[in-house]
Amino acid sequence: MDIYSAPSKQYLTLLKQFGFQDDRFDLLMVETLLDSMAKFAEQKLLPANRVGDEEGVHYDPSTGRVTVPPVFHDLYEEYKSQGYASVEGLEQYGGQNFPPVLVLIMAEFMASANMAFSLGPMLTPAACQAINFSGSDAQKSYYLPKMYSGNWSGTMCLTESHCGTDLGLIKTKAVPAKDGYKITGNKIWITYGEHDLTENIIHLVLAKLPDAPSGSKGISMFIVPKFLDDGSKNNVICTGLEKKLGQHASPTCFMSFDNAQGYLLGKPNQGMKNMFVMMNEARIGVGVSGLAMAEIAYQTACAFCRDRRQSRSLNPKKIDMNHTSDCILVHPDVRRQLLEIKSTNIPMRAWVVYAGLLLSSDDKKDKARVSLFTPMIKSYLSDRGCVNIGHAMQVIGGSGYVKDWRIEQYFRDARISMIYEGTNGIQALDLVGRKLVKDGGASMRDLLADMRSAAQVCAITDLSTGLSKACDDLQQASLWLMQHTSADHEQAAAVATDYLQLSSLVVLAFMWSKILKSDDKDSLDSCLYFIHHVLPETEIYLHRIRHGKKYISDIDAASF
Amino acid sequence: MDIYSAPSKQYLTLLKQFGFQDDRFDLLMVETLLDSMAKFAEQKLLPANRVGDEEGVHYDPSTGRVTVPPVFHDLYEEYKSQGYASVEGLEQYGGQNFPPVLVLIMAEFMASANMAFSLGPMLTPAACQAINFSGSDAQKSYYLPKMYSGNWSGTMCLTESHCGTDLGLIKTKAVPAKDGYKITGNKIWITYGEHDLTENIIHLVLAKLPDAPSGSKGISMFIVPKFLDDGSKNNVICTGLEKKLGQHASPTCFMSFDNAQGYLLGKPNQGMKNMFVMMNEARIGVGVSGLAMAEIAYQTACAFCRDRRQSRSLNPKKIDMNHTSDCILVHPDVRRQLLEIKSTNIPMRAWVVYAGLLLSSDDKKDKARVSLFTPMIKSYLSDRGCVNIGHAMQVIGGSGYVKDWRIEQYFRDARISMIYEGTNGIQALDLVGRKLVKDGGASMRDLLADMRSAAQVCAITDLSTGLSKACDDLQQASLWLMQHTSADHEQAAAVATDYLQLSSLVVLAFMWSKILKSDDKDSLDSCLYFIHHVLPETEIYLHRIRHGKKYISDIDAASF
Repeated sequence: MDIYSAPSKQYLTLLKQFGFQDDRFDLLMVETLLDSMAKFAEQKLLPANRVGDEEGVHYDPSTGRVTVPPVFHDLYEEYKSQGYASVEGLEQYGGQNFPPVLVLIMAEFMASANMAFSLGPMLTPAACQAINFSGSDAQKSYYLPKMYSGNWSGTMCLTESHCGTDLGLIKTKAVPAKDGYKITGNKIWITYGEHDLTENIIHLVLAKLPDAPSGSKGISMFIVPKFLDDGSKNNVICTGLEKKLGQHASPTCFMSFDNAQGYLLGKPNQGMKNMFVMMNEARIGVGVSGLAMAEIAYQTACAFCRDRRQSRSLNPKKIDMNHTSDCILVHPDVRRQLLEIKSTNIPMRAWVVYAGLLLSSDDKKDKARVSLFTPMIKSYLSDRGCVNIGHAMQVIGGSGYVKDWRIEQYFRDARISMIYEGTNGIQALDLVGRKLVKDGGASMRDLLADMRSAAQVCAITDLSTGLSKACDDLQQASLWLMQHTSADHEQAAAVATDYLQLSSLVVLAFMWSKILKSDDKDSLDSCLYFIHHVLPETEIYLHRIRHGKKYISDIDAASF
Repeated sequence: MDIYSAPSKQYLTLLKQFGFQDDRFDLLMVETLLDSMAKFAEQKLLPANRVGDEEGVHYDPSTGRVTVPPVFHDLYEEYKSQGYASVEGLEQYGGQNFPPVLVLIMAEFMASANMAFSLGPMLTPAACQAINFSGSDAQKSYYLPKMYSGNWSGTMCLTESHCGTDLGLIKTKAVPAKDGYKITGNKIWITYGEHDLTENIIHLVLAKLPDAPSGSKGISMFIVPKFLDDGSKNNVICTGLEKKLGQHASPTCFMSFDNAQGYLLGKPNQGMKNMFVMMNEARIGVGVSGLAMAEIAYQTACAFCRDRRQSRSLNPKKIDMNHTSDCILVHPDVRRQLLEIKSTNIPMRAWVVYAGLLLSSDDKKDKARVSLFTPMIKSYLSDRGCVNIGHAMQVIGGSGYVKDWRIEQYFRDARISMIYEGTNGIQALDLVGRKLVKDGGASMRDLLADMRSAAQVCAITDLSTGLSKACDDLQQASLWLMQHTSADHEQAAAVATDYLQLSSLVVLAFMWSKILKSDDKDSLDSCLYFIHHVLPETEIYLHRIRHGKKYISDIDAASF
């Protein structure tokens, strides 16, 4: 398979369509960059994906050491030597400071080829963002170059066994001590918390100072290196690994901090701010990985459908007289499932480019929009990504359930994207409870106005009509929320997921309006399927939203 | 957990509500039977479920022998000694001839406790059905008692590597020989094709006679025992096992027949008829297993929600002042997901009882209805079952992705139910292409008339209105199909899945109308959620159906 030529071509077109401009990168350079990333992904990362899944990660309880699949070492060396570890960083700290949109595009290629490998490389830059955001100059100069070089990696140590979503409940303590703080506590679900790929691991740890206010206002962030400056081992150890549905080659660690040496990052009790800097970076990346897996699942399903012959077309014109049966691509129900994937993957990819470009902007409205988009992209792309992988598995049938066509690994690996970095339900609460209300709904109103204008100028009647109608539904839903949220937060919480689904669908239609050219029959076909088969779902979401919490909240807890 | 008390109670109520009557079984006896099955399921099958998944099945290439997880041997001995192997059989052949509805109920309990174990016991009775349907008296007397005793097991050997859905393409040959036929060919995906639980394995093999007509009209079925009457080994061998997403404890075998001794079952070239006898039995069972896994997933999610505390309720009245945080059952988005499961699991279970009772009837209309229901139950219960397991995983969050709460195993194991015994897309084609049209739509008209009557007499206004509206949608969809199918089969194929989803939703509402009592607040709450949040989906299915193949079939194959 030539997996990356279609997405590469689409990305280049999208960058053109969305007016990408950068002093250092013209489109020819971008093309070269994508070619080289595609080559790395297809020739190195992808062949190691199944091997990694089968070999998994290993933990040695006597030493606390974790080893990743041996083949990952070569991958990581090439990843470093190609400079991929530093694409995000500021130049003064050894980074290449790529435009965020290019970083996201490269993230899709990495994730579709080998999501388990890509998780480490996805978290290190997120940790760097937090250090960059609130670290002292000394901290930045010390840590960032080593992390951007890929010689050191980073983690986020947030979750504890009794709290994930509600970090206000954490128990890890930080006590002032010589040269910093002593950190004590246990963290769980630490992705690449321990591994043998880098010389050092920089843990960013949420903990509470002795006099901290209760709840999330009393959380501070600390830098806790695996090895201290003098080369000695810090008192942080991996105490075990999770056994998981997927991501077998990505270590998910129990980490224990026992009077570990730590350094405050930013101000006391401001840890949640740093965390959101990391999180927001990671959340868009999670959405991209959902799209990534849906893309490779789509290509796998198409390859299967061209190869597999069963029965005859019901349309006499499509019967292939050279064979005793037709390839299954002739069957409408197979096409329907492929179109479900294709007609959503395309605008999801456009959304990534659109949001990626907003990330470069200093304009206040653009910043608000990307903040609005963050929970939507995280949730919708991962939800729909998993749905699309399910369609691909279904098209492939029994061969999709067994290991041969690799779909079953995508199905397992991608499923985490709906859960980590805040479950998709939590994202929905972030959307309706924070993003939508923080400016009195202004950023959603702006978005709606832009989408309505796009519908008006759109030359494709079906799309114009469909998008207008979808905007009506979104406007109704937003009004309902504005009217009911302030008086009763439970109302907003009850409709949050439906609202996220509804608004994301409208954005997909908006993306179609931005990228569709009427003379491109291939795209037009997919767009028409989207408009007439997928987009009408907005109606059911609106329908549900109008019920609010009525059929949800008053039920006796004992009856569940 | 006390997993079976809720479903047991519900089943007993359902049997009462649907007027179950049997000379040999009063409700007290049924209750005793369910109690004993529940005990077996909860105390024996369930504890072996995760062990089985982790140990998996093993294949010895030097002997072709397959061993199941050792713990399964004790389970199987108890399964036999309790007489569960013979619940279906006719008494003259050693069976206990239970009413089909009881067999289905017991199948739910078996599957939710240990689906991988239950697959063998599910297929043997299906093979017996085929032998019973078309075997000679000698064949019935010889094979059935040994199979009903559980000492011998049965398989269905249908699929070959180049054909699954389109069995007309099979290449396995049967050549007349002394005492029967010599069978030669290779079969794949043979569930429990080889294992070490029984003394003998009776393969029912589809093969072609030398002078057979081409396609599916030239397929015959043969009995091919692993061991022949004289105790010698037949020329049938397992050549390997599939590696699969789930069902690790259930062997899925490559089987090779090399001049194996076989015996014709039924008439030459009538093999497809026998196969459908087996299949129809198995298909309803597959649907039941989807429901089974959704039930245990629901109970697991509820147990987690009662235990897990995160954040505070947004409703001041629900705040638990005895703790620093509230159990997550207070959060509307968590409840919404639990209600998605509960409000569909209940009517799906009612559907199983309703269909199970129809299976006992000799009435022509009842037979037509159960035939109409078969693809719907297979697909809808497995589709929705997997969706519901996804909701349960999402509620549990990270703990659902790791192995501790077992959800990830249910997620993997249940997924096969959407694929095997004919993918759900194939079921939909069976519904619109065979079941709906074979009597000119009469059985669907009858069903619609019954459902409309139910809506009229229903005392709960929301349900009455919702069911009526859903019937309107189904009627419109059915009319569209009737008008467009005969002239263009591609139209029917394009809308088949949407039609199956639509009609199944209406049946669920119909089931609610049959079982809901207005004084049962618990059920009423679930029903109202169903009516107002789930049932309105019929609209989007109708919307899509009206587009027919327009946006699906005319797209150039190269553009996928």
